[in-house]
Amino acid sequence: MKSHVESDRPKEECGLVGISTAGNDAARLAFFGLYALQHRGQEAAGISVSDGRAVRTHKGQGLVGQVFEASTLDPLVGRMAIGHTRYSTTGASNERNVQPFVVETIHGPLGLAHNGNVVNADRFRTELLERGAGLQSSSDTEVLALMLAGMEGDTWDERLAKVMPRWQGAYCLTIIAGTKVIAARDPWGFRPLSLGRLPRGGHVVASETGALQTLGCLDIREVNPGEIVVLQGDLVRSRQAVPPATEMARCTFEQIYFSRPDAVWDDLSVHEARQNLGEELARERPAEADVVIPVPDSSVPAAIGFANVSGIPYNEGFVKNRYIGRTFIEPTDELRRQGVALKFNTLAANIAGRRVVMVDDSIVRGTTSGQLVRLVREAGATEVHVRITCPPITNPCFFGVDMGTYDELIAHHLGIPEISDHIGADSLGFLSVPAMMKALGRDSGYCNACFTGEYPVPVQLSMATEKRRFDGALG
Amino acid sequence: MKSHVESDRPKEECGLVGISTAGNDAARLAFFGLYALQHRGQEAAGISVSDGRAVRTHKGQGLVGQVFEASTLDPLVGRMAIGHTRYSTTGASNERNVQPFVVETIHGPLGLAHNGNVVNADRFRTELLERGAGLQSSSDTEVLALMLAGMEGDTWDERLAKVMPRWQGAYCLTIIAGTKVIAARDPWGFRPLSLGRLPRGGHVVASETGALQTLGCLDIREVNPGEIVVLQGDLVRSRQAVPPATEMARCTFEQIYFSRPDAVWDDLSVHEARQNLGEELARERPAEADVVIPVPDSSVPAAIGFANVSGIPYNEGFVKNRYIGRTFIEPTDELRRQGVALKFNTLAANIAGRRVVMVDDSIVRGTTSGQLVRLVREAGATEVHVRITCPPITNPCFFGVDMGTYDELIAHHLGIPEISDHIGADSLGFLSVPAMMKALGRDSGYCNACFTGEYPVPVQLSMATEKRRFDGALG
Amino acid sequence: MKSHVESDRPKEECGLVGISTAGNDAARLAFFGLYALQHRGQEAAGISVSDGRAVRTHKGQGLVGQVFEASTLDPLVGRMAIGHTRYSTTGASNERNVQPFVVETIHGPLGLAHNGNVVNADRFRTELLERGAGLQSSSDTEVLALMLAGMEGDTWDERLAKVMPRWQGAYCLTIIAGTKVIAARDPWGFRPLSLGRLPRGGHVVASETGALQTLGCLDIREVNPGEIVVLQGDLVRSRQAVPPATEMARCTFEQIYFSRPDAVWDDLSVHEARQNLGEELARERPAEADVVIPVPDSSVPAAIGFANVSGIPYNEGFVKNRYIGRTFIEPTDELRRQGVALKFNTLAANIAGRRVVMVDDSIVRGTTSGQLVRLVREAGATEVHVRITCPPITNPCFFGVDMGTYDELIAHHLGIPEISDHIGADSLGFLSVPAMMKALGRDSGYCNACFTGEYPVPVQLSMATEKRRFDGALG
Amino acid sequence: MKSHVESDRPKEECGLVGISTAGNDAARLAFFGLYALQHRGQEAAGISVSDGRAVRTHKGQGLVGQVFEASTLDPLVGRMAIGHTRYSTTGASNERNVQPFVVETIHGPLGLAHNGNVVNADRFRTELLERGAGLQSSSDTEVLALMLAGMEGDTWDERLAKVMPRWQGAYCLTIIAGTKVIAARDPWGFRPLSLGRLPRGGHVVASETGALQTLGCLDIREVNPGEIVVLQGDLVRSRQAVPPATEMARCTFEQIYFSRPDAVWDDLSVHEARQNLGEELARERPAEADVVIPVPDSSVPAAIGFANVSGIPYNEGFVKNRYIGRTFIEPTDELRRQGVALKFNTLAANIAGRRVVMVDDSIVRGTTSGQLVRLVREAGATEVHVRITCPPITNPCFFGVDMGTYDELIAHHLGIPEISDHIGADSLGFLSVPAMMKALGRDSGYCNACFTGEYPVPVQLSMATEKRRFDGALG
Repeated sequence: MKSHVESDRPKEECGLVGISTAGNDAARLAFFGLYALQHRGQEAAGISVSDGRAVRTHKGQGLVGQVFEASTLDPLVGRMAIGHTRYSTTGASNERNVQPFVVETIHGPLGLAHNGNVVNADRFRTELLERGAGLQSSSDTEVLALMLAGMEGDTWDERLAKVMPRWQGAYCLTIIAGTKVIAARDPWGFRPLSLGRLPRGGHVVASETGALQTLGCLDIREVNPGEIVVLQGDLVRSRQAVPPATEMARCTFEQIYFSRPDAVWDDLSVHEARQNLGEELARERPAEADVVIPVPDSSVPAAIGFANVSGIPYNEGFVKNRYIGRTFIEPTDELRRQGVALKFNTLAANIAGRRVVMVDDSIVRGTTSGQLVRLVREAGATEVHVRITCPPITNPCFFGVDMGTYDELIAHHLGIPEISDHIGADSLGFLSVPAMMKALGRDSGYCNACFTGEYPVPVQLSMATEKRRFDGALG
Repeated sequence: MKSHVESDRPKEECGLVGISTAGNDAARLAFFGLYALQHRGQEAAGISVSDGRAVRTHKGQGLVGQVFEASTLDPLVGRMAIGHTRYSTTGASNERNVQPFVVETIHGPLGLAHNGNVVNADRFRTELLERGAGLQSSSDTEVLALMLAGMEGDTWDERLAKVMPRWQGAYCLTIIAGTKVIAARDPWGFRPLSLGRLPRGGHVVASETGALQTLGCLDIREVNPGEIVVLQGDLVRSRQAVPPATEMARCTFEQIYFSRPDAVWDDLSVHEARQNLGEELARERPAEADVVIPVPDSSVPAAIGFANVSGIPYNEGFVKNRYIGRTFIEPTDELRRQGVALKFNTLAANIAGRRVVMVDDSIVRGTTSGQLVRLVREAGATEVHVRITCPPITNPCFFGVDMGTYDELIAHHLGIPEISDHIGADSLGFLSVPAMMKALGRDSGYCNACFTGEYPVPVQLSMATEKRRFDGALG
Repeated sequence: MKSHVESDRPKEECGLVGISTAGNDAARLAFFGLYALQHRGQEAAGISVSDGRAVRTHKGQGLVGQVFEASTLDPLVGRMAIGHTRYSTTGASNERNVQPFVVETIHGPLGLAHNGNVVNADRFRTELLERGAGLQSSSDTEVLALMLAGMEGDTWDERLAKVMPRWQGAYCLTIIAGTKVIAARDPWGFRPLSLGRLPRGGHVVASETGALQTLGCLDIREVNPGEIVVLQGDLVRSRQAVPPATEMARCTFEQIYFSRPDAVWDDLSVHEARQNLGEELARERPAEADVVIPVPDSSVPAAIGFANVSGIPYNEGFVKNRYIGRTFIEPTDELRRQGVALKFNTLAANIAGRRVVMVDDSIVRGTTSGQLVRLVREAGATEVHVRITCPPITNPCFFGVDMGTYDELIAHHLGIPEISDHIGADSLGFLSVPAMMKALGRDSGYCNACFTGEYPVPVQLSMATEKRRFDGALG
Repeated sequence: MKSHVESDRPKEECGLVGISTAGNDAARLAFFGLYALQHRGQEAAGISVSDGRAVRTHKGQGLVGQVFEASTLDPLVGRMAIGHTRYSTTGASNERNVQPFVVETIHGPLGLAHNGNVVNADRFRTELLERGAGLQSSSDTEVLALMLAGMEGDTWDERLAKVMPRWQGAYCLTIIAGTKVIAARDPWGFRPLSLGRLPRGGHVVASETGALQTLGCLDIREVNPGEIVVLQGDLVRSRQAVPPATEMARCTFEQIYFSRPDAVWDDLSVHEARQNLGEELARERPAEADVVIPVPDSSVPAAIGFANVSGIPYNEGFVKNRYIGRTFIEPTDELRRQGVALKFNTLAANIAGRRVVMVDDSIVRGTTSGQLVRLVREAGATEVHVRITCPPITNPCFFGVDMGTYDELIAHHLGIPEISDHIGADSLGFLSVPAMMKALGRDSGYCNACFTGEYPVPVQLSMATEKRRFDGALG
């Protein structure tokens, strides 16, 4: 499904949007919002709208622009909408897991979309089953929705405030019910969620500020950790449902790789943050070279930063093919051996006869880096110095990012010199945790568990395995 | 969706099949079984299989042969299967309501398919919602499945036996869970359900014996009212979960119209029963005429019976176009006025200059009958005598058959002479209830509520309306 | 693709319709006309319309109701239309061969649809290629269209009159160009083609009168052998382009099997003709028996006729499953051995303990008949007497009907007693050619080559092979 | 179909690939080659293979990865293949025009794919029609193929050599027939075409060297103007069919915009050429500013060049959304007014409070530039200086590029100061023709007709209109 090269990146699990607008085009705004969040999940998408009484949903597998066309979008009439774009680990059989998840409750219809991973969800799953509920999917989202539906309280925000203290881990939620869109963020603040005002009335919440910018929003601010935000008509109400964690745990990888460079998060421009990471990298892991090239697209600002500090000229070294679709055919191993290489071509004119610094944002399994180093050498580079804008990834993520297992992580097994050998570089430098935090201008408040193994919320390491049992049971 | 002419018939709601076989091709047998039950529902179809641990399902909208192809059928590997074919009142948005309904429970995965209508389901729906469960569809099937999942008991058949006494109305069920396929029939016996033995090991339950014949079954018998049948490996176990109702309430319309003529039900060959209905009709409502013609296809045996008793020659008078598909385009009113008539052409050679008896099996709204009478006249008939093999339908069905509402039923508003005028017949004769029962050779044991208004189980007449509220709420 | 049972029938190759109407809904009328001709070809369908200048076409594989929906039909605006429904021997790769065939010529755009087989087309194919034309399909239709386009003449009907004398064999054509729809029939009159008047202005040509009846046509007559009919506005003009053949060569199988029973052809009602065939059969090949049953649906009138003459009661013995679609999954051989039988179930109540006459319309390869006889025996018949409403088929057809090759025809290899043994009948009787002609009330004027080997137009027996070469070349 | 922003660019019409390989995977190599040429046409794609006798083709509308999947690619077995990716002006109805065009000829099956525009094709179209040929599409490709098929000669390369002198204008062709793949390029060399050697045997021709690099090719060289190259087995034969034009006419826009930056054409690295264009632009049209930003993606190298020469820092200013698919829904005008802007977001951190040089590669209608300038201002730029890496486009292209008509070209109507006002820039600078040629290091040999109106081959300006007549006629 995924190209061979792309597969060697951390995977985000979702993008969220929630809309309350003055007109009846909430679904269309949700569509454009999701479109700006497409990079956060390309496997499935869905939108639910409410006209105040009924909740209507369309969702399916594929890119936002494949799932929705005029005929499926136009019937979604209403002033409120939530939307979701999803990265999923498995394939066609998981149609049931596509979000928003919609359910009839004693309080009326409820739609819910979720980004993150609640690490104690499996306990609640068992509780629900013991209570006699039936579960129709393997997704945590259904568990969260049924827990919410079962809480006491006069309003959905009250019920949400009651249930949030029970959930451990990473979650951003958008909820649609009756005349309200409700958004919430976990008290650790793992995943980003921001709020903006529509110029002609109404508000939007979205995983990234870029989506708010795309919709023309003003007065953009973060949804706070532990905060519930209720959009209703033109109004926004807020309540602090859970006190923020003593120590916040923002995902550093949002800054390094996930978010689009136009995002602003933790008051930092992501593009600037990446440029700063490149600058720190040039200071901490300098190299003697003739040209600095990025691995496109996410490493471009870091490479510019590296070039600025080092004084080595910046240029493009790779051309990336952007037209990979969902049903793409991969080269056979035989064709690979013959030299068929789809994802990147090199620009020999900028590389040949030069000492090259290649800036990249992470090494997960090490498969891609080795290929890229080889391509650069074949294009005539005399030396290849690889510089990575974060520390070695030595631990899996349990908060909604698919990093791979311990087994799959090259830095769990090998030291930096061995990795350098493995990828065939002349030198390899990672940014240290302190330098990374210095680049972000922060001392703390970030989750660096994938680099350090210090998880901000206790996790059972058997978790992933457990979940698969349920997946299998419903085929 | 439905052709104009077809829409003037009572609508069955489902066909069921359940398989336990010695090989791994339970799904394929379920497919061929459903194919033989296609006339009971053309809107959607689904099959769930179990390999003893996981339950895998494929379902979708369309004919059985459209929903399933090798690529969707082949992955359904297992020795147990249940299948369902569905007639549905509404359209595309009801994808969620397609059966089998599959759910993860505290006792493992459960699949359930249902034919009928449980008249007190809405009360249980509310109970479930109050208990904090969420419902993801508007179908009763989900309610039945969640009730079942919430019952106490060590086995699924035990839980089923516990819950059945609570359900009022018409239900035949097939259930798949673990290594068992379970079938059950309500104590009134509204809908047919039969059991047969596969020649090379295993058993099959199906809504009609024709499906069992298609699969080559031997030792065919009815599942009794109130009986639970458990298929496991080569074995069949039976338990009488609820005592049979004092007075059985078989749906007479199965004999008149729904079942395929190769069905045997209540120890009657349906083809023979229809021929008998025609014979009684000739006795009770004779006519002076030159030829007896059926409205194809279901009235053919009755017309043969009418001809036999009356001595008037039998012949075909209509040619029916059989190629109407799901996306069929209807003629505009303008084209209809110009004489475009799609469903039936007449055979003038058999009609012109003759006095014609036209035998049909029911008049629901009266729209079709009028068109047919006009066609017969245009083909040159000198007289048209319409004979119907059942009494006037004056009341809606609340047990799973879509007859239409009181408003829509022509015989709720008009007497027989007025209907005769309305459809333009020279004479119109219905079979009386006693003559109909005489044709079946039975005094009682049948539900004739649509003719008499005497419902065998008390019903709330607001029911249909109530259900629509939920439909709307989930869009 | 085709069910196992259906495959043992002669295959028609096409249905044609041509419309000139007062309104702009010619395409919609063509659609309903094709729908009434669906039995003549279920593999593909197409419609071309002309608004007087441009010719617009939609065509595709599948049933008429699958190929066309509102979105594809509505853009086909115009007062003239032609349509085609096609039976094709091969599958998906032959998209190019779907008709109407449309081509830009020096005289403007031309659309053409064809039913039949021009036996000297391959010579013209070579001529065209030698002249430097390129051919984009393996179909004769393209050859006929390019020949027509290359003829001299001021009008299309003139050019058509010039080219028709060159064509040997069976062809009915509908042509659309400019403001005209033109229809033509070969001088032997192999295939049927009729003309009718629309009640509100305009005319229709169609392969069968049933389609004209469906469209409400009046003043129906056959298009004569060798005649060209030009529909333009409200007018019809006719010219005898080629003198009728000394001896006409109507396809007898239209009367026996292909045409719908509501067709009138050669002034005979097809339903009545079939009843007559059954009557003659009862006289020529009587049987001692208790019941006469038809193989549905085409043998019903013949069985009624047989019953009338023999005095043996008529009844139904088989139930046919009508829901076989294009992607239908066939039982494996293993399942067949276990008794899975999809196409027909028997009505034991009408068969058991009786001596049965089973009336069928043809035996091609003999595979079906054997299965049916076995089913009847398994249903308890004490004797099975098979009666066929035509003579043994001993020769292939080269005029557009797929009978199979010499090798495949059972009557090319075996005598009647051997065939009787092969199919397991107690007796087997075919109608003789003279008795068949007597039933039709004609001495001559029919092509009986498949029974006699006397082809009315000389054919090269290598023909079929030759054509396949081109098929292969364009993949 | 196309996004509003993308629509303001010149449109290339095709990408070509031709393969002769040692294995049977020519189709798969063609697929990967087309994939690397996807930027040259996203509307349709097709591949034809030959196994030496038959030519098999699969083609359809959509991206290469949508048209082809394993099930459509795997049947295309053969050692020879040609492929085509297409930009098309109109939509769904032009299925017939998708290439390769395949035709049966007297010399056997022939497949042909074409990039460019033969300006005297309409004359040949008329000749063919007068000769009695029929044309089934409105595309020139069919005309070229039928002309080729009608030429005398013993081999396809001989026939091609005979017909090439008749063709005026731009054409690169790949042809497949029998055991050969043949490629040819017009004597003016308008469009690029290159040849490379597969490391394990066989050769590839492709529109751009990047595709050859993707396939691992060695020994890459241009196909010469007027040259025919014949790939057969491992061999390549060449013949100079037409003498090169006295003055070559390479399309300058390949260097400026069309080709991927990894292309090498006219011995120039396209990336380097664009960097040079940026450098010359900085010299010829300097600006006082704080940052140089490119309009992604094509202007990145030029912006780097501009920054290098001007000493103004380079940075990214826009984030481009890359996920626009074929069925994309556009914002309504109302939503646009509210500020919904999909294609580009700005990076305020790099723009706010600065004087910005925005480097772009062309202004066609001027719609995009105005939007971009406004976005940059809204992001806080104090000044916006637009610099374009080519001269004003004042004339349409008749050689295969869709620039728009005279009416649509803003520079046909307005002078530079008026355009600057129109787009709201503080200053606007275009590169002059001499400076552009200097950047390329060439005095001549390029077609600059769109800038100068001096067409290297005489064209009839009515051409486009004429062609539309045929399009319409076949609907």
